[in-house]
Amino acid sequence: MAGEFDLIRRHFARATQHTDLGVGDDGALLRTRPGMQLVVSSDMLVSGTHFFPDAEPEALGWKTAAANISDMAAMAAEPRWITLALALPESNDKWVEAFANGFSACCTSFGVDWIGGDTTRGPLNLCATVFGEVPHGQAVVRSGARAGDELWISGTPGLAALGLQHLLGNIELPEGARTACLSALHRPQPRVALGLALRGVATAMLDVSDGLLGDLGHILERSNCGALIEDALLPLAPVLSASGDEAQARRALLSGGDDYELLFAAPLSQRQAVLDAAQRIGLPVTRIGAVTDQANVILLQGKDGARSPLAARGFDHFGS
Amino acid sequence: MAGEFDLIRRHFARATQHTDLGVGDDGALLRTRPGMQLVVSSDMLVSGTHFFPDAEPEALGWKTAAANISDMAAMAAEPRWITLALALPESNDKWVEAFANGFSACCTSFGVDWIGGDTTRGPLNLCATVFGEVPHGQAVVRSGARAGDELWISGTPGLAALGLQHLLGNIELPEGARTACLSALHRPQPRVALGLALRGVATAMLDVSDGLLGDLGHILERSNCGALIEDALLPLAPVLSASGDEAQARRALLSGGDDYELLFAAPLSQRQAVLDAAQRIGLPVTRIGAVTDQANVILLQGKDGARSPLAARGFDHFGS
Repeated sequence: MAGEFDLIRRHFARATQHTDLGVGDDGALLRTRPGMQLVVSSDMLVSGTHFFPDAEPEALGWKTAAANISDMAAMAAEPRWITLALALPESNDKWVEAFANGFSACCTSFGVDWIGGDTTRGPLNLCATVFGEVPHGQAVVRSGARAGDELWISGTPGLAALGLQHLLGNIELPEGARTACLSALHRPQPRVALGLALRGVATAMLDVSDGLLGDLGHILERSNCGALIEDALLPLAPVLSASGDEAQARRALLSGGDDYELLFAAPLSQRQAVLDAAQRIGLPVTRIGAVTDQANVILLQGKDGARSPLAARGFDHFGS
Repeated sequence: MAGEFDLIRRHFARATQHTDLGVGDDGALLRTRPGMQLVVSSDMLVSGTHFFPDAEPEALGWKTAAANISDMAAMAAEPRWITLALALPESNDKWVEAFANGFSACCTSFGVDWIGGDTTRGPLNLCATVFGEVPHGQAVVRSGARAGDELWISGTPGLAALGLQHLLGNIELPEGARTACLSALHRPQPRVALGLALRGVATAMLDVSDGLLGDLGHILERSNCGALIEDALLPLAPVLSASGDEAQARRALLSGGDDYELLFAAPLSQRQAVLDAAQRIGLPVTRIGAVTDQANVILLQGKDGARSPLAARGFDHFGS
């Protein structure tokens, strides 16, 4: 792309905190710390698939970084570095500047050095790769859940899904709720502090990007377990108060993605530790059920005590 | 994408050598070694910009890995891990399998663990991020060239550019040359062994992906130096024997990219060390000139001894 090197120089070369050599060479040079494992994750966001072609670039930049940093939170890792490769249909300096500002703001918020990447011409595509560190053996992976563990979710999942439905014109959110839902959608807050606080506490964890039930399915499959979700425990109130429609609110909560909340399992003996960690951080967490030994089966226990199966994927089959 | 998880599981989950946790979680877990700096580089390849939409997928897979691994060679780093994110216009299992086989074959050749990535729906886009290790302080960067250093190029640059011109229908290569040129284009060999052998020998280095003169310009700019290229020293013979046309051969040699040869500077005192390293590895290297103190000026010394300026970018302006 004409001006590729200029673009990189003007927008991508930001100050770094723990990097020996950043943008501008064949590779960046990083100082890793002894005793740490490196954690790596890549995400690719495509125009028309993951975001609207006319998405506001600063918010899109934030979200691109946030979605990646959230993967570090989900591993209980400290996010440290990120690269960004992007394809642009045309050289659009204003767009790049706004995007870079949003991306950089999110990185700065979470202590992440933006160390380089690539720019090229092509249909709009954003690919970030994030690196974190975790003391050896302390990462929280998906496969560690055990029958009897309790299941928890952070924050107020479902708001982002409502925001998306609003933008798609499928629902009309009241003005008061709109801001909160669109902010959840456009400026998600990766739960890095919670992830770090859950080292040694959670047995399995991931960030909810595909929807709570779908992502719960990933934990269960990897851990060879099942789950019992208690309807009465679900944090329905915030999403119901935004939506006003119970079926819609439950759908957003259980199958909406994009909130980047942490879903995790922890032993009963760690219940107080979980609550203490959440209080320290100032982020609500909600116990929503427990891990069972029925591999890959998710049951929902209604308020009447009756238990009915839930498909881990395809919440549409669940009559609420 | 429907089947995304299946695709990943079937094709992306390869055996690893120095990885604690590979594909399948929020992130991969890597064992870095003490005393090492981590080197990171990202490249994005777009259909229609970097390769033909109907490119043979196995060769494309090889090249995607090779182009990235080459960045590690250029830093004198040992390539260790790679992630791949790809966007596909449709679920095409055969294509993905062939692509993954080529990508994996290249990784295996160079001892690189393929540790994960992302798949999504979208216009064909391939984004790889590669990680290498180098003992602290031993990376060879672009900024270290000093006036008086000699300039070297590895291998037989220009063949890939001829192959590309042949595919574009701009030239017609004789059958004997065609295979060598298309192989240089489709299955480039990153110069990892040479890069490692030049630790402590080369003062500045990069891999030629934008063309010899253009990339030389990057070294000179970063090193605040100039260069004198000696026409009589240029390794024109291999590319001339393939092309048969001297102007075309010189153009391919000086401004063709895609060969992924290493261009490096080394002090005169290291000339024998360079030659010894090349011989040990079995890869020809050619001394093509020297670094001067005239910042950002590239002079070409003709066979008659006359010196004329060369534009670092835009070889088209150079009447050969």
